[in-house]
Formats: sequence, structure tokens, C-alpha cells
Amino acid sequence: MADKVLIYSRFPKTMMVRFAERFELLDTGGKPAREVFSADELSGIRALLTAGGTPLDAEAMDLFPKLGAIVCYGTGYDGIDLKAAAARNIEVGHSPGANAASVADIAMTLMLATTRRILAADQYVRSGDWVASMPSPMMRPKAGMPGRRIGVYGMGEIGRKIAARCAAFESEIGYFSRTKYDLPYQYFPTLEALADWCSVLMIAVRAGADTQHVVNADILKRLGADGYVVNISRGSVIDEKALVAALTDKTIAGAGLDVFDNEPHAPDALTALANVVLAPHIGGHTLESHVAMQDCVLTNLGAFFEGKSLPHGVK
Amino acid sequence: MADKVLIYSRFPKTMMVRFAERFELLDTGGKPAREVFSADELSGIRALLTAGGTPLDAEAMDLFPKLGAIVCYGTGYDGIDLKAAAARNIEVGHSPGANAASVADIAMTLMLATTRRILAADQYVRSGDWVASMPSPMMRPKAGMPGRRIGVYGMGEIGRKIAARCAAFESEIGYFSRTKYDLPYQYFPTLEALADWCSVLMIAVRAGADTQHVVNADILKRLGADGYVVNISRGSVIDEKALVAALTDKTIAGAGLDVFDNEPHAPDALTALANVVLAPHIGGHTLESHVAMQDCVLTNLGAFFEGKSLPHGVK
Repeated sequence: MADKVLIYSRFPKTMMVRFAERFELLDTGGKPAREVFSADELSGIRALLTAGGTPLDAEAMDLFPKLGAIVCYGTGYDGIDLKAAAARNIEVGHSPGANAASVADIAMTLMLATTRRILAADQYVRSGDWVASMPSPMMRPKAGMPGRRIGVYGMGEIGRKIAARCAAFESEIGYFSRTKYDLPYQYFPTLEALADWCSVLMIAVRAGADTQHVVNADILKRLGADGYVVNISRGSVIDEKALVAALTDKTIAGAGLDVFDNEPHAPDALTALANVVLAPHIGGHTLESHVAMQDCVLTNLGAFFEGKSLPHGVK
Repeated sequence: MADKVLIYSRFPKTMMVRFAERFELLDTGGKPAREVFSADELSGIRALLTAGGTPLDAEAMDLFPKLGAIVCYGTGYDGIDLKAAAARNIEVGHSPGANAASVADIAMTLMLATTRRILAADQYVRSGDWVASMPSPMMRPKAGMPGRRIGVYGMGEIGRKIAARCAAFESEIGYFSRTKYDLPYQYFPTLEALADWCSVLMIAVRAGADTQHVVNADILKRLGADGYVVNISRGSVIDEKALVAALTDKTIAGAGLDVFDNEPHAPDALTALANVVLAPHIGGHTLESHVAMQDCVLTNLGAFFEGKSLPHGVK
């Protein structure tokens, strides 16, 4: 009989195909597990698959007395209470680096689309304003990439790939992270100092309680009127109300966002703005990235059911 | 008295400010010169400033019997009849490389925006479809950049900058140009062979009579159903009708276009499509690019009126 895996978050069926070939999946469809399965069914669950951003606290873990492995699809695990898991001898796994290139590329896409105003440009052509030679403040030339100061917040795998890509655009790269690395980029000891220096802040930090709303009104003000913020990490890193205010009163020039505070909701005040480019958390959403993330999930689950520790465990 | 310069094309006034400080500008506003200025005024014109894409043939040159210099704002000079100019001892100047980074960057912006479907993504968030979990075929995962085969058509300054940027995205780079260079990219001896190999064709070739409609139905078919074409050169390089057909019947997956056959017109059949990203010829349209192009114009005009040959002449 195939080992059972509870699908704790809501995932498209297409992303589950490879797992279904190997395990018996109990799919909650993102609903509370107790609404979908009996207490008896849940009591036998030893492994579950979840999205890293989905909240999973001590109380939720206690629904599954035999739980030994929480496997996250993707890089993040900010929804998981790691202390509660450790206290229950539950291992937590994820897919480190599997989607790093894909996420770095959406960061680049959002930065370029925002700074070169590609939504307004496309609309300018489609609406007929170009033919009519309609003046448009959105079409005024702005600074380009050569010499631009890009500040990368967080120097994990995604941050490094963002920095390498930006360097090819002839930009200057600076970064802030807890650790100073041996990298050919300028290190800033605080986020404030990075924000003072850069004109584009790329948020690539691993999100957690310590990064909650650290990109606040003060940091945005330091970016300045020609400044941009791009977030591909988690919505929680930015104070979303402060961001909407800064975008509305032109404290900063624009933003490119793949993540939001309360997904899949994006505030009306944000979706009404012309100086933002928004994406529905599609950073890791490429074919090869999904295959790589699925490989990590399969390796983790396979090892767990063989009684081994998770090869891609959260450290 | 300041030397006189005829402004032959339609330019925004903001782009002419630095020239007006040094020369007396006779601005046609893009209208036929004879409608705006008297034959007497035109007969004294020794230098004119034009956009490289604006047609300027032998007949037009003969309106200005004293013409000695045609200075193009930007890199291109495809509108100028070079033989007719040479026959009249008229020098032709341009701004080689001044906008290369800016144009390469719009190529990257269009490629990423098209392949990552950023217009559909932004609309998916703004429309509320994301909150409503509406299924969208436009949001299905597609191939990303690592390992993608990018074909660069034309290896001048812009083509090289595109290739260098794509390499940072972990893509494979191939190119076709008349000359094989000592570059770390795979050379293809024909455009057909390049199109067979690549999944994104980046058109960065210098446009002219020899490149008219070379990207035709056959080339597009070779790109295939997962193929994309990005054009930042001139609209004339693509057979626009064949492109619309290929995009409509899904012979290729999408296109990113900064240039069109009959600017500022973009065909209705093109602006109706969801699988294209369109821009109103803003490739060279960044602050630093304009400054660099203006520097070239001022250097060319200054030298000409001192009796020297153009430092940035068309070779």
C-alpha cells in the first residue's frame, strides 16, 4: 500500500501529478483538514506537503499525532512554527535553490517593467495615443540601467542571482545582509545605509518574524523620488500601507511586486496605481523550476518513508 | 550669428534644448520643409538634424543646394539615401553606440515581459481574478531563462550587449551576422539555422534594404510553437503581416516589439493580441542615452561648422 501524504495547502492538480504516482494523496484543497477528513484518517498521517507561506502552528500540528515530516513546496517556510515542529520531533523540508533562477528572473522582469514603464508603454500603443501623438508624462525618459545603483536586500541564492544579472546590465550593486560575504559588491552594514545609497531596492531576504515590515515608511523615504522597490520575497517584509502611501504621494517612483501581505488579496489602493507592476506570486512559476521543486519534494518524502532524515531539510 | 540647423523630423522640444543653446534651429515639426520655410530660407541650409528612420532621398536633398551634413539623432540611418548623399558631397553622421545599452535593455525588458507574461499577470491581479482563483491559460507555467536558447540576429554593439545580458540569465546564446566574431557564443551561418536552433529570436541587426522582411513566415515557423520574437531594430526587418498571422494561429508563442513597419501606427490586428508586448519605439529613450546621443549630435555639428569631417560619421 502506498504511503499517505496529506496535501495541506491549496495546489493546482497539475503540480501534484508526480506525487500521486508515488504516494496516496489526501488533498484538503486548502480547506481545514478536519472539514475534509475524519479524525481517524488524520491520526494516521505521518507526512504532509504544504506551501511555505501557509500558517502551520503548534495547534495545527497536534491534529496529526504521528506527524514526522512537513515538506514545503518551494524555498520558503515562513508559515511553519519551527520551534513547535522541533519540540514534536517533526522534520521540516523545503526546496532550497530549486526556484532561485526563476525567482531572480521575475525580480529582473518586475524591475525592468517598472523602471521602463512597460505597462504604460504597451497601453500607449494599444490605445491609439501613440498615433495621436498624445503627450504622456508616463512616457518621459527616465534613468536606465547603466550606472544605476541597485541595492539587494538578502544575499542567499536568489539575491546572488539578482546581483549577477544586474551586473550584466552595467549597474552598480550594493547589498545588505546579516553576513558580509566575499563578493564583488559593496556591502552596507544596515538596510538604512543601503536604502540611502541605492535607487532600486530588490527585496530577496528570507522572510520571518525578524523581517516583518522592516521595509517601512523610513526606508522608502530614503529611496527617494526616483527610487523603486521590487519584492519577490514575502509580502510581510514590506509595510504595505506605508508602501501604498509612498507610491500615492510620489515619495518613491514605483514598485514591482510579486508578493503581498494577504495573498491572494492585493489592496484596492495598490491595484489602482499606475506606477506599479503586479504579479500573482509567480516567481518560482516556470516549468524547470517546478520540476526542480518537485524533485526536492520527492527526495524528501522518499527519504522520510525510508526512515532517513530529510536530504533537503530546513537548517 | 549662430549657425543654422534645420530640424527635419518631428522631435519633442525637450530633446532640442541643448541644440538651441548653440545653433539657430529652423524646426519643421516634421512637416515638409517647404510648407514651413521659404525657398530662400532653405537655400542657405548647410546642416540638418533628422531621425534616422525618416525618409530622406535625393529629391529631398536637392531642396537644400548648400547641404553639407545630415546628422541623425540616434544610431540608425536607414531613411537616408547614402549614395545620393555621397554623390552630393553630403556627410552623414549618427550616434554609434550611444543608445546601445538602453536599446539592449528594452530588448531584455520585452523578452522577459513576453515570456513571463507580465501584462497578463498584472491584469490577473488587478482584475480580481487572482482572489477569485479564476483559471487562466495565460498563467500556466512556461519555460524560464536557464538553458533557454536565445538567438541574436546582428552582433553590433546592441547585439553584444543583449548577448552579455542573456548570458547572465544562464541562457545559451547563438547568433547570426554577416561576420563571425571571436565571441563566446555559437555562430550560425544563416538566419534559418539560427531560427531552427533558438526559442527566442532577438532582432538587433542594422536595418536596410538588404534586411527588408527577412524575418518572414518561414523564419517564424522555424521558431516553433514555443518560440518568441523580439524586435528592437526596425519594423521593416519583419514581415508584419506574416508576424500577425503567426501570432494569431499560434505558430509562435509571442512577440515583444518596440518597432513597427509604419510608425507610429501599429496594426489593429497586432494591438488586439494578448500574446504580445508593444512599446512606442522607446528603446533609446533613457536620460543617459539621450545625453549621449545629444553629445554625438553636438560634436558632429560643431565639427562640421568648423570645416572638419564628422567625428561620428556613417562608415
